[in-house]
Amino acid sequence: MAALAGVKALLFDVFGTVVDWRNSVARELAAVARAKGVTLDGHAMADAWRALYDPQMAPIRAGKRPWTRLDTLHRESLVTLLPRFGLQDLNAADIDDLTHAWRRLDPWPDSVPGLLRLKRRYVLATCSNGNIALIANMARWGGLPWDAILGAEATRAYKPQPEAYLGSVEILGLAPAQCAMVAAHNGDLVAASSVGLRTVFVPRSREHGAVQIKDAAPSGAWDVAAADFNALADALGC
Amino acid sequence: MAALAGVKALLFDVFGTVVDWRNSVARELAAVARAKGVTLDGHAMADAWRALYDPQMAPIRAGKRPWTRLDTLHRESLVTLLPRFGLQDLNAADIDDLTHAWRRLDPWPDSVPGLLRLKRRYVLATCSNGNIALIANMARWGGLPWDAILGAEATRAYKPQPEAYLGSVEILGLAPAQCAMVAAHNGDLVAASSVGLRTVFVPRSREHGAVQIKDAAPSGAWDVAAADFNALADALGC
Repeated sequence: MAALAGVKALLFDVFGTVVDWRNSVARELAAVARAKGVTLDGHAMADAWRALYDPQMAPIRAGKRPWTRLDTLHRESLVTLLPRFGLQDLNAADIDDLTHAWRRLDPWPDSVPGLLRLKRRYVLATCSNGNIALIANMARWGGLPWDAILGAEATRAYKPQPEAYLGSVEILGLAPAQCAMVAAHNGDLVAASSVGLRTVFVPRSREHGAVQIKDAAPSGAWDVAAADFNALADALGC
Repeated sequence: MAALAGVKALLFDVFGTVVDWRNSVARELAAVARAKGVTLDGHAMADAWRALYDPQMAPIRAGKRPWTRLDTLHRESLVTLLPRFGLQDLNAADIDDLTHAWRRLDPWPDSVPGLLRLKRRYVLATCSNGNIALIANMARWGGLPWDAILGAEATRAYKPQPEAYLGSVEILGLAPAQCAMVAAHNGDLVAASSVGLRTVFVPRSREHGAVQIKDAAPSGAWDVAAADFNALADALGC
């Protein structure tokens, strides 16, 4: 496809773009609550958990806290939320296991078949803020066929810091224009394109449930926009 | 299997243990020589190229040279060898492509089927001195089903430096005793076991051609020794 001429690798955002974090995490939270006899809205707690993600990364991005793996940040934010949702009695092993709910996120239905098609032509790498163990175990869980796990831990930078994109590109031994960032979030593509990567937008209108707050449509002149990963494979002739 | 009780991840040496570097590189060297009308013993040049590997890493291991990717070291050593083998007329693009012969190494016949069986039970990671792009492209070439690419680039250390093993284990979120190093080289297992990893020896008696100089048999009391990766999967009940 002319829009991605010269592109050798596709770099993927993961949470929301490849996997349905909200329903997957809500399911695990609800199961734990049932086991403990606690009444809980799993989706509300999943949303609250995810809402702490950016505030946690802010001091790291600002250089006020050393780089820390997302598994660790997820555990810290979970601990702060437990009392609010009636789960203050979980023990350390329960908390560890629940933290790893983020390693057991289900792919969107088109993710695996689309990635398998795209892999025939392109190197497929993650460029996520998830740490390597998180993304590797998630790939085992969902059958995601990554060639390489890049992004935050490989570069010690959290998107949208430029180094998260540029460091990932450098590890692949490619130039920025030989890589396309694939994301359901316009902000991710703004950051990637600002340092020279090509861009692919795939909407995930159910990421936040019935009400899509933002990112329902491309906000910029991205190189490609496709309805899902199968449509992307079609568009790229894979 | 009791010998690996508690082990969650297998860490693999790659060159020699998983792939047949010597015949693969020799084939590519011979093809280039034929195309250039040069008479060449591909195996002799492959051996000479590989022989420069440890001397190149010595100053890096000693802290006298900044950490440098193996792709770069392979290119440097190739350039020094070209005149000796009559290939001094290669251009830069030829040299780049030939350097990437190390990304196109064939697996031993049992490697892929054995790994696919082992992957059902264990996280499979590389702990190689190859850089991420090299190992990722080699995996695409040969169909190697890695869950994660660790080792040198992820840890900025070259085996047998302890940090190459311990850093890989830490990235997986595991303890050393939860990881087993799989290698055809006793020295790799000596280093891994000295920092607490479990050990698996798999002989590769044809790595260096007809004459096996060393590593024909286990030299230490490794946790498991298996004839090949299928035998290892048998031994581990996979």
